[in-house]
Amino acid sequence: MEYKLKKYNKKAKYSYSLGTYPTIDLLKYRSECVLKILLKREGVGSEGVDTVISLCKQKGIDYEIQDRVIDRLFLKENTYVVGVFEKYDMDLGREKNHLVLVNPSNTGNVGTIIRTMLGFGFYDLSVIKPAVDIFDPMVVRASMGSLFQVNVRYFESYKDYSGCFANRAVYAFMLGGKYELNSVEFKTPCTLIFGNESKGLDSEYSDLGNSVYIEHSSEIDSLNLSVAVGIVLNRFKSAAR
Amino acid sequence: MEYKLKKYNKKAKYSYSLGTYPTIDLLKYRSECVLKILLKREGVGSEGVDTVISLCKQKGIDYEIQDRVIDRLFLKENTYVVGVFEKYDMDLGREKNHLVLVNPSNTGNVGTIIRTMLGFGFYDLSVIKPAVDIFDPMVVRASMGSLFQVNVRYFESYKDYSGCFANRAVYAFMLGGKYELNSVEFKTPCTLIFGNESKGLDSEYSDLGNSVYIEHSSEIDSLNLSVAVGIVLNRFKSAAR
Repeated sequence: MEYKLKKYNKKAKYSYSLGTYPTIDLLKYRSECVLKILLKREGVGSEGVDTVISLCKQKGIDYEIQDRVIDRLFLKENTYVVGVFEKYDMDLGREKNHLVLVNPSNTGNVGTIIRTMLGFGFYDLSVIKPAVDIFDPMVVRASMGSLFQVNVRYFESYKDYSGCFANRAVYAFMLGGKYELNSVEFKTPCTLIFGNESKGLDSEYSDLGNSVYIEHSSEIDSLNLSVAVGIVLNRFKSAAR
Repeated sequence: MEYKLKKYNKKAKYSYSLGTYPTIDLLKYRSECVLKILLKREGVGSEGVDTVISLCKQKGIDYEIQDRVIDRLFLKENTYVVGVFEKYDMDLGREKNHLVLVNPSNTGNVGTIIRTMLGFGFYDLSVIKPAVDIFDPMVVRASMGSLFQVNVRYFESYKDYSGCFANRAVYAFMLGGKYELNSVEFKTPCTLIFGNESKGLDSEYSDLGNSVYIEHSSEIDSLNLSVAVGIVLNRFKSAAR
């Protein structure tokens, strides 16, 4: 590789998958974006690392033992395998169901949500800025590699998104929603909207379609964002059967 | 206070609630355990801090401006309010529904799970060792203070737990479970068991009662633990209505 690898920077053209399983998914689903695979010597021989090496051979991708580089950049992450990949652009499927996250700020939540989406058959995520960088290695890691099977597109505003994707059934999840989740009969293709971790959705979102709440006790202010998304996507999938 | 406050240590007799809302819940629900409240000067005058101060006055609890102590111990946590409290023992309600976490290892997950429990009317958590320390300030914070309304008791093994709490309807959540979640009719008082974040439950748990799975696509290995618990508790609550 001709450039010196640096700590992740959101302005950089490349990012990292940390760990065996995220890197296996990178090699399986986005191999055209892989620049190189770095390995630590002590991992070689383990089943996961052997799978990484055989995928590299099969797809003609370079891999190198680079203990010093991995320790310099990712000592804290305690990993044997690093995938270096070029960031890529994605678009959303027009006929697909979409999840919209408005201003998500926590990398762990967004990664967990992407993993949950894949678990319940959602492949298209719209992210309204400002928001976390989905190529942040902490998102990749929390997604367990699911990021590489999901389409993500950023928009400057919800209006920009809805301008591109009109005529959809819209469900906005908010504390003061009009309908209780279990009473909703979802139409498709749909757009499910969730707000920021601490602020939720502004009341203006209740006018965009159906506003929906998840019933919970008044002893908590709200559910954790990734838990709320999990409950909704699970219910969506059960209702669709 | 006669001792010098130190960074949190799981062997210490006291712990910390970091942030306004967890500390308000500490003062509301476990005021008898509070040793002292520490505040940063710049927070005084905000609504949250004023609520903390008025709760302290109402309950006769000392509060002090201690910018230097807070910066020394919790600079990274960026907080104006710290509650110092003595750890306490709890027991589980015999007739109540219980959640059992076997060897949970992630503070954020456990805190989020406790918050979700409170949201869905579960007040009793059994934790099988080895496991995270529920008084770790990161658990308190992720629970958003919900910890102070939930009973938590540690056991050396599941057998120790079931020896104390026999004759309950037991549901073990695992990938190879026998029943799909939506087909289960929960009996009460029940015990819902979830495994460790990376390993799940051993197959021996399937013999303890009903083994249950949450249907998801094969594109992911498993759901995130706190997402899985959220889906199950939500479904439990919906089914009980």
